[in-house]
Amino acid sequence: MIYFTTEEIDRLISEDVPYIDLTSHLLGISSKRARICFFTREDAVTCGTEEVIQIFERLGIQVDSFLPSGSQIPAGSEIISGIGEAEKLHYIWKVSQNILDHCAGIATKTRQLVDTVRSVNKDISILTTRKGFPGTKKLAIKSILAGGAVPHRLGLSETILIFKQHMDMIGGFDALLERLPAIKAGCCEKKIIVETIDGGQALELCRRGADGIQFDKLSPGSIKEIAVSIKEQYPEKILLAAGGIHLENASLYAQAPIDGIVTSSLYNARPINIGVKMVPVK
Amino acid sequence: MIYFTTEEIDRLISEDVPYIDLTSHLLGISSKRARICFFTREDAVTCGTEEVIQIFERLGIQVDSFLPSGSQIPAGSEIISGIGEAEKLHYIWKVSQNILDHCAGIATKTRQLVDTVRSVNKDISILTTRKGFPGTKKLAIKSILAGGAVPHRLGLSETILIFKQHMDMIGGFDALLERLPAIKAGCCEKKIIVETIDGGQALELCRRGADGIQFDKLSPGSIKEIAVSIKEQYPEKILLAAGGIHLENASLYAQAPIDGIVTSSLYNARPINIGVKMVPVK
Amino acid sequence: MIYFTTEEIDRLISEDVPYIDLTSHLLGISSKRARICFFTREDAVTCGTEEVIQIFERLGIQVDSFLPSGSQIPAGSEIISGIGEAEKLHYIWKVSQNILDHCAGIATKTRQLVDTVRSVNKDISILTTRKGFPGTKKLAIKSILAGGAVPHRLGLSETILIFKQHMDMIGGFDALLERLPAIKAGCCEKKIIVETIDGGQALELCRRGADGIQFDKLSPGSIKEIAVSIKEQYPEKILLAAGGIHLENASLYAQAPIDGIVTSSLYNARPINIGVKMVPVK
Amino acid sequence: MIYFTTEEIDRLISEDVPYIDLTSHLLGISSKRARICFFTREDAVTCGTEEVIQIFERLGIQVDSFLPSGSQIPAGSEIISGIGEAEKLHYIWKVSQNILDHCAGIATKTRQLVDTVRSVNKDISILTTRKGFPGTKKLAIKSILAGGAVPHRLGLSETILIFKQHMDMIGGFDALLERLPAIKAGCCEKKIIVETIDGGQALELCRRGADGIQFDKLSPGSIKEIAVSIKEQYPEKILLAAGGIHLENASLYAQAPIDGIVTSSLYNARPINIGVKMVPVK
Amino acid sequence: MIYFTTEEIDRLISEDVPYIDLTSHLLGISSKRARICFFTREDAVTCGTEEVIQIFERLGIQVDSFLPSGSQIPAGSEIISGIGEAEKLHYIWKVSQNILDHCAGIATKTRQLVDTVRSVNKDISILTTRKGFPGTKKLAIKSILAGGAVPHRLGLSETILIFKQHMDMIGGFDALLERLPAIKAGCCEKKIIVETIDGGQALELCRRGADGIQFDKLSPGSIKEIAVSIKEQYPEKILLAAGGIHLENASLYAQAPIDGIVTSSLYNARPINIGVKMVPVK
Amino acid sequence: MIYFTTEEIDRLISEDVPYIDLTSHLLGISSKRARICFFTREDAVTCGTEEVIQIFERLGIQVDSFLPSGSQIPAGSEIISGIGEAEKLHYIWKVSQNILDHCAGIATKTRQLVDTVRSVNKDISILTTRKGFPGTKKLAIKSILAGGAVPHRLGLSETILIFKQHMDMIGGFDALLERLPAIKAGCCEKKIIVETIDGGQALELCRRGADGIQFDKLSPGSIKEIAVSIKEQYPEKILLAAGGIHLENASLYAQAPIDGIVTSSLYNARPINIGVKMVPVK
Repeated sequence: MIYFTTEEIDRLISEDVPYIDLTSHLLGISSKRARICFFTREDAVTCGTEEVIQIFERLGIQVDSFLPSGSQIPAGSEIISGIGEAEKLHYIWKVSQNILDHCAGIATKTRQLVDTVRSVNKDISILTTRKGFPGTKKLAIKSILAGGAVPHRLGLSETILIFKQHMDMIGGFDALLERLPAIKAGCCEKKIIVETIDGGQALELCRRGADGIQFDKLSPGSIKEIAVSIKEQYPEKILLAAGGIHLENASLYAQAPIDGIVTSSLYNARPINIGVKMVPVK
Repeated sequence: MIYFTTEEIDRLISEDVPYIDLTSHLLGISSKRARICFFTREDAVTCGTEEVIQIFERLGIQVDSFLPSGSQIPAGSEIISGIGEAEKLHYIWKVSQNILDHCAGIATKTRQLVDTVRSVNKDISILTTRKGFPGTKKLAIKSILAGGAVPHRLGLSETILIFKQHMDMIGGFDALLERLPAIKAGCCEKKIIVETIDGGQALELCRRGADGIQFDKLSPGSIKEIAVSIKEQYPEKILLAAGGIHLENASLYAQAPIDGIVTSSLYNARPINIGVKMVPVK
Repeated sequence: MIYFTTEEIDRLISEDVPYIDLTSHLLGISSKRARICFFTREDAVTCGTEEVIQIFERLGIQVDSFLPSGSQIPAGSEIISGIGEAEKLHYIWKVSQNILDHCAGIATKTRQLVDTVRSVNKDISILTTRKGFPGTKKLAIKSILAGGAVPHRLGLSETILIFKQHMDMIGGFDALLERLPAIKAGCCEKKIIVETIDGGQALELCRRGADGIQFDKLSPGSIKEIAVSIKEQYPEKILLAAGGIHLENASLYAQAPIDGIVTSSLYNARPINIGVKMVPVK
Repeated sequence: MIYFTTEEIDRLISEDVPYIDLTSHLLGISSKRARICFFTREDAVTCGTEEVIQIFERLGIQVDSFLPSGSQIPAGSEIISGIGEAEKLHYIWKVSQNILDHCAGIATKTRQLVDTVRSVNKDISILTTRKGFPGTKKLAIKSILAGGAVPHRLGLSETILIFKQHMDMIGGFDALLERLPAIKAGCCEKKIIVETIDGGQALELCRRGADGIQFDKLSPGSIKEIAVSIKEQYPEKILLAAGGIHLENASLYAQAPIDGIVTSSLYNARPINIGVKMVPVK
Repeated sequence: MIYFTTEEIDRLISEDVPYIDLTSHLLGISSKRARICFFTREDAVTCGTEEVIQIFERLGIQVDSFLPSGSQIPAGSEIISGIGEAEKLHYIWKVSQNILDHCAGIATKTRQLVDTVRSVNKDISILTTRKGFPGTKKLAIKSILAGGAVPHRLGLSETILIFKQHMDMIGGFDALLERLPAIKAGCCEKKIIVETIDGGQALELCRRGADGIQFDKLSPGSIKEIAVSIKEQYPEKILLAAGGIHLENASLYAQAPIDGIVTSSLYNARPINIGVKMVPVK
Repeated sequence: MIYFTTEEIDRLISEDVPYIDLTSHLLGISSKRARICFFTREDAVTCGTEEVIQIFERLGIQVDSFLPSGSQIPAGSEIISGIGEAEKLHYIWKVSQNILDHCAGIATKTRQLVDTVRSVNKDISILTTRKGFPGTKKLAIKSILAGGAVPHRLGLSETILIFKQHMDMIGGFDALLERLPAIKAGCCEKKIIVETIDGGQALELCRRGADGIQFDKLSPGSIKEIAVSIKEQYPEKILLAAGGIHLENASLYAQAPIDGIVTSSLYNARPINIGVKMVPVK
């Protein structure tokens, strides 16, 4: 469960209803009661119902039924439903639908990618990058977790991932090799991962103490060749494939002896087609 | 220009850097200076540079060059560049790239849709729905504006749009007709728009005072037929086509004598491929 | 119902109680229970009780009775009452009273203005400007809605209202006339309203496509004369009277064939005299 | 100077411009430059210019001239002016005007009240209650300070003011007398003030250690009589008159040997009539 | 009771759980239920349980038992316990423990100081300065209140305390004496306190109208001597000892006829050793 | 550099100055200019100057000189100084001093601990727990970084650390051993660390794939014995000593072949004695 603050929930609601629902106000339907129900028009992995429950609670809407995030459901299934005043159901209609369809879109596609990769190699982690739409981070992380992936890095503060740009700043590849022992001594709990596209550099880094190598935008074949040679000598080292990997080509990458696939492709998943029904109740 | 608060800018930065860049800290590169440059790898309409400038300013990064949102640029063009401490450039790298690629993606696709529709009928408004990814509203609205569209509704508080669910609450279609004069008297400045898929209802609504009709998920042919008959009698009434309209089918809809096309399809535009270069400077 | 976030409710409470009620702390009355009751000393339209309920809930005070916003009540009536710990009743005493008296003040005066105008012409909208005390917007909008008015504009983002200052920027009146068709094509759902004090300009604007005219600070007689001549030719165009209109002179303006009266006068309504009683309970 | 946070300034701006100025956007005047000038149409004490400067700075508007809060100026005087992009001047127009007119309204009326009272008795403090419009506290406090008053209590956390409701909770008047020494011992730095309307109680409270008495809704004559008798015996005790005191009757109260006048009447001061001019510049 | 906003509670939780508990997620223990119990390993004055209850409520954890802040308990006592989902208990474990141990540390040491001083002189207030760790103010104030002290000043806005630095700005000691009557007339409800280390100045200030004197970093003996001489002439004036006073030397200061002891020493109290047990329940 | 948001800086300032400095207001010293200077009265490692600079900037105070966080300085050294209006210097005096003394306290003590441990074994990381005073996290993390330590865990979302309580939830120690491969496959980039006090369990965990072991509250001798036996077989595994380790006993622990020392003892470091001088300037 991702922890959403009350402020975050309020912000989502307020964005769509800064003051009132003018249409409901002018129609005078505030006090009528109704049942709202969100259902899927396609097979999906649900996601976001816990947040929709928080939204319901803020408006005094009673939860009638719901499926937890991560449930695999067929087209036509009800996902969540609630009962409350008609005006308040209009307040939460669109924001709830937008959460449910976008999150289910990502969770469903993640599940597909995880299953695809695991059918080739059950020991590969699916790791998602930091390249989502700004403002969606908590919902996006929740969605990939619901689909079976984990975040590559939540942000810059908690992992060590060294790029060419870093090496340029400290004096190049050799300078990095010299510094590796000090970095390990300073921060022993983290794996030190370095990005490179060069097999020789990768081997040398492993020899000198790096815990893992990230290969960016190499072909499945190249990665396989390099990975095989590294794993022969350093079976404990972590090897990651990144750059342009998605549902269509992931199973090719999974044939290499790698430990993880890093991808941004899940964040732009097409939203699941979520329908909404609202009917008066007494 | 969309107004972003300091808190919103800070939230974007903090999401990626809650404390520090651990890698830069351990490498000790805080005080090195460098130039960062964001460029496009495809033809695009730029968007989000004003927000990236605010991000630069928060970190004391000096803007070196930039193109305003809405600029049409060819592949290879620099979009924005800045000079500052290497550690701080790492702080803003990914969030800036994520703003620029997602916003340019939407702006570029919006521009295409607007141009496609206007080439058929130059008097049609392109209107975008409220169906974006929760948390992206300001950036998404900025992006569709940069591409030449306008928001259909910013939220529920400022427009009158009556759906079947509203009618169900007040006693059905005839009850609505009776109430129309009172609604107009209560809120004279707004156009009263009603959604229907029935041509007869649409005509009756126009006769009784509605200012516009929104047709949901009708075929281009059906809309054209109904629109022609309404415009004959009520040339001033606003007719909108909504539901499943996107870049591929929009020109078909544009052949009807309608005033606006309402679409959600722009929000999920594929991000533009934005590259980043960072080089040391003195 | 205006949507107040938890943060907004908390801010109201905290403003008066940043830490504790020092007096209650030193007197040691924290655990005593009491009933607090807010009542009106004059005839009034109630407003703000829903927000006071949210305040009660934040402090664990049980609502004992309340009247919804918009109720017309005679002097002496109880508006809202609650039961809880004495210390916490002191926390919410003043902020609740301040909400109830200011909001009822506006709602009551709005009701009077609406009734006054409607007794002359039942089809006139009462529209309130953006000229309230900064910081009071949600409560002020809630109050005028409770009294039967609607906001003229919630802000700058949702309506098109063209002033002389705009014309000066684009090249004057004739430049505006030329641009009108493009503005309509870009944003078909909104009414385009232009402010002027010149009858001839008003007629020309209507002829060229403006949807409405706002007359600023004209006398009732002048507005009537111009409005009659416009409505003869353009019965569908919206005519608004603005500038210096208040309870005392509104019925004069209502004699013109206008559609709306725009006023700032309601925001400074004298607060209703609200009394508070607090008695120990077991 | 009242300290306004960036968030508070941003909230004021965003309230009026949640996204854009739609009119400016459609007219395409974003890049034109202009000078905006706020001036008073009546004699006034200025207030709020420091906050308008913060607003200007957030939008990149250059301050051209300004008068600090508290300046006494004649009708026709310029208060503050700035130069910037026309679109941004529209963003800040109304919120700046609303700050300047409401704050000057309170500051001007406060100055009048202070001068009126001081002309009778120069040693009387003018103290303002906590009965303002919720959401306006910082601006209202700033305004009464600019006019020469001070706040009676900023909130509940910093002063000791004992009402009948407190006594009811601890066992009545005699119970309070018994507790006074302990309260003084627990919090020696604060003055202990008790509200009563009974001269005998007031004397007894002074004898037993209260530092001051607040008289609520007594006539000027009654207060004078009681105050004279208390000051004879206890010249150091603080005596306050509260309840229904305003500009018209304050000089009557000032004839009693009291130390302070407590009033809510200043918060609802009529806004000063502030005009705005905007002219294109190069 | 200190009023904590929902945002403040959420911030405390989110700081430790920005997204998820990764360990619980990977172990799949989300749905298991358990009981968590916080107990003290040393004699203590409890503090912070009301805030931990708010934390429990945000996560749907049911409170099983708790002791209110300010309770004096022996080693081994349970302080608060709750029942809920295992994952959520991990979310709140550390933040709850950190509140309980730090707050109890301050409350316990405050109680000791208050008891020590009161055993010498029962009429002395224990007053705590503004020198806490930034970010801890509400919890620290709550803790010293729970232990029997009160805050010297909550901030700069509510008291008058004049230092040498102020005198330097207005022209020195004599200039201050001249201004005292005007300050008293402007703000009659506050005690005017001046800091000095000079007995002669102190006497002169009392003679000219100051309500109290704060002595900074004088020895117990010096303060006693000066205080005796002042109290002879001015028994009503407030005398405060400040600077370097703590549990070990406070009883020496308490032998002087002073009214209050001002100390910063309580804020850095060693946290109480609080243990946590968590056991599965059905 | 820790990233502080504008809101965080504003919150620190506002906490001490919710409205005004009442003393400065009544003394009328707003417009006088002065220089404020913060200096240390003891040898110290500076910390927090970057945040004080942000505070200066918010109030328009010009930075005159400053030392970056992490500088080792002797008693008497100036740390930071600024020039501005006297009233504003009073606003920032205490909050700046509180940041500088608490942060330097932690940084100085951290530096001592790091140096002590490194003099015995230069490859040991000093890691700080999550047991700080709630509300101080960013400043505390900044301070330990300035002193040469790194955070053990920033929160629960980014590391895998398995306690006995986790094992209890999934069926005990053997159940954990069975699950280890799946956890590694799901999250390959993180080190899996398990806490135990049993040498046999530790060996078995290493054999089955754990990346490290944390030993809680063992004596230096016991840890050394266990660590030696593990490192013989598994030199790559990470061994951590935690529980009751502080400046006085750390060098004993450092004699074991461990990789890191985990400690909470630094967060309660005594604040460094920081003095403040303020002198008028022209």
